[in-house]
Amino acid sequence: MLTRRALLTFIFAFSAIGGAGAQSPDPLPSWNEGAVKKSITDFVARVTAQGSADFVPTEQRIATFDNDGTLWCERPVYFQAAFAFDRVRATALQHPEWRTTQPFKAILEKDIKALAASGEKGLLQVVAATHTGVTTEQFSKAVVEWTATARHPRFNRPYTDLVYQPMLELLAYLRANGFKTFVVSGGGIEFMRPWMEKVYGIPPEQVVGSSGVVKFQTGAGGKPELMKLAKVEFIDDGPGKPVGINRFIGRRPIFAFGNSDGDLQMLQWTAAGDGARFAGIVHHTDAEREYAYDRQSKIGKLDKALDEASARNWTVVDMKRDWKRVFAFEP
Amino acid sequence: MLTRRALLTFIFAFSAIGGAGAQSPDPLPSWNEGAVKKSITDFVARVTAQGSADFVPTEQRIATFDNDGTLWCERPVYFQAAFAFDRVRATALQHPEWRTTQPFKAILEKDIKALAASGEKGLLQVVAATHTGVTTEQFSKAVVEWTATARHPRFNRPYTDLVYQPMLELLAYLRANGFKTFVVSGGGIEFMRPWMEKVYGIPPEQVVGSSGVVKFQTGAGGKPELMKLAKVEFIDDGPGKPVGINRFIGRRPIFAFGNSDGDLQMLQWTAAGDGARFAGIVHHTDAEREYAYDRQSKIGKLDKALDEASARNWTVVDMKRDWKRVFAFEP
Repeated sequence: MLTRRALLTFIFAFSAIGGAGAQSPDPLPSWNEGAVKKSITDFVARVTAQGSADFVPTEQRIATFDNDGTLWCERPVYFQAAFAFDRVRATALQHPEWRTTQPFKAILEKDIKALAASGEKGLLQVVAATHTGVTTEQFSKAVVEWTATARHPRFNRPYTDLVYQPMLELLAYLRANGFKTFVVSGGGIEFMRPWMEKVYGIPPEQVVGSSGVVKFQTGAGGKPELMKLAKVEFIDDGPGKPVGINRFIGRRPIFAFGNSDGDLQMLQWTAAGDGARFAGIVHHTDAEREYAYDRQSKIGKLDKALDEASARNWTVVDMKRDWKRVFAFEP
Repeated sequence: MLTRRALLTFIFAFSAIGGAGAQSPDPLPSWNEGAVKKSITDFVARVTAQGSADFVPTEQRIATFDNDGTLWCERPVYFQAAFAFDRVRATALQHPEWRTTQPFKAILEKDIKALAASGEKGLLQVVAATHTGVTTEQFSKAVVEWTATARHPRFNRPYTDLVYQPMLELLAYLRANGFKTFVVSGGGIEFMRPWMEKVYGIPPEQVVGSSGVVKFQTGAGGKPELMKLAKVEFIDDGPGKPVGINRFIGRRPIFAFGNSDGDLQMLQWTAAGDGARFAGIVHHTDAEREYAYDRQSKIGKLDKALDEASARNWTVVDMKRDWKRVFAFEP
């Protein structure tokens, strides 16, 4: 009986992949073997096995991922901040007043100390100057141009090359198993959507993020347009993440991945549902291939969520130990 | 060559439907033949034909539908208002003060005149009393119970039977042609999501609507929960519809259907994009099988949008003329 089933399984696998002599390839080749990789594949096997007590119908296989520090790098500064700074430099000629006004002066002069001194108020001024007063289509175009031309200061590559290869594999693996993958990020929704479909395979309607108020109006030539206003609408961070998930997705994920305390409530919300649940954290432990930081970091601080992961047995990825490769461009 | 292709086409069609002697059935059997039905099938043929100048890749085939009056009936009152009134009656014993306080007194005594006199302020009080102060899960449960038990006053059937059969066929037809179908409604998002997947085949994450503020908190037993607060967050109506589409979907539909002036901006936004576009309006012209109303109506007023449809050659469904059946339960 077992032999017959094995034979049938072989035939099925053979026909499904449509190749001669092919074997089922590892769907997560950039993950080292070990408890972390096993926790992922075991979970997926449990929720997709027909008849299993943990079986979850496909329409409920919702997986949510933080972006900065989880799907792509967030150092030395959040990439959206790099975009904003580059945009200040790119449009400085149209704003001569910036040469004498903080925090713009600091950005133009690369005066990091003065920039830091401008604090949150300064940052909001930069966001207002670089993210608003344009239509959604103009902004989207600016983002696409930036991703095509800007370079990361350490790796000297487009920022969209700084996505984690193991996480790309994980996204594809989940989708191949009937999951719908979403980004749930503190980053700006209009900054993420223009490139995520191409880079992650995640369409705009599956990207949740922070947003500013947008206004419908009639533009030049009588054409309707959506204008980005200088008013914050929603911050998709911390307790805002389950709120954003509820608002945009309308059901609770069964699988969530983050990397910082800003993801804690998303992970709690995911883990607290009935049935099988997966909560994962990327721990940045690899200063050589990427960066190493956690409890003391200003960007991507991982402290409370690390404690809770330990207390609740969530999966913690040790980047150095668990990832064979970090980036696709590594030799 | 043509003969061989015809043969292959036949074999492929045969194997795809898996039946002997089957012919391609009409995907819109509840629509009468005519210019309106043809405008729909012609549009779908154009945007799905590989190599056609109007071809649209599947990921961009976004179709948005208003709900009240477009996918289901909105008379004699918006069904969400009926839900709210029923909920006031169902929870009146816990609120003895309602017996002497308007607008609750009017609802309990079915005093339509006094209810109308309470105006928008009264309505907001009713919404606050019936839609907030509960968790999202409690509210969802109340909606599901109501859809299972409440009956429409004229048709004496569950409200979810009052969906338009031709529109159900249209949703399925679009999906079969690679479209992703969304609801974009002025109705409350948490009121719609619990039943739309079952009734329309539209999952929660493809339902856009008005919303109240929701708060993440730790409930009894330490479990995280989302509490619905008595504060309006977003009104997905009129100019709010393109804003809601931008926020939730992040790209412009190529196909949209509405029935009232509240849908005008959604239709304008859809029609103003590049390439082939479809904008449709359901005109309620059938007092016998459903209701007849348009320019003078307080509910579902169709005035400016009807003029614009005429000026711009949008498709206007004359319910009486174009629909063979309105509801599935008709004899």
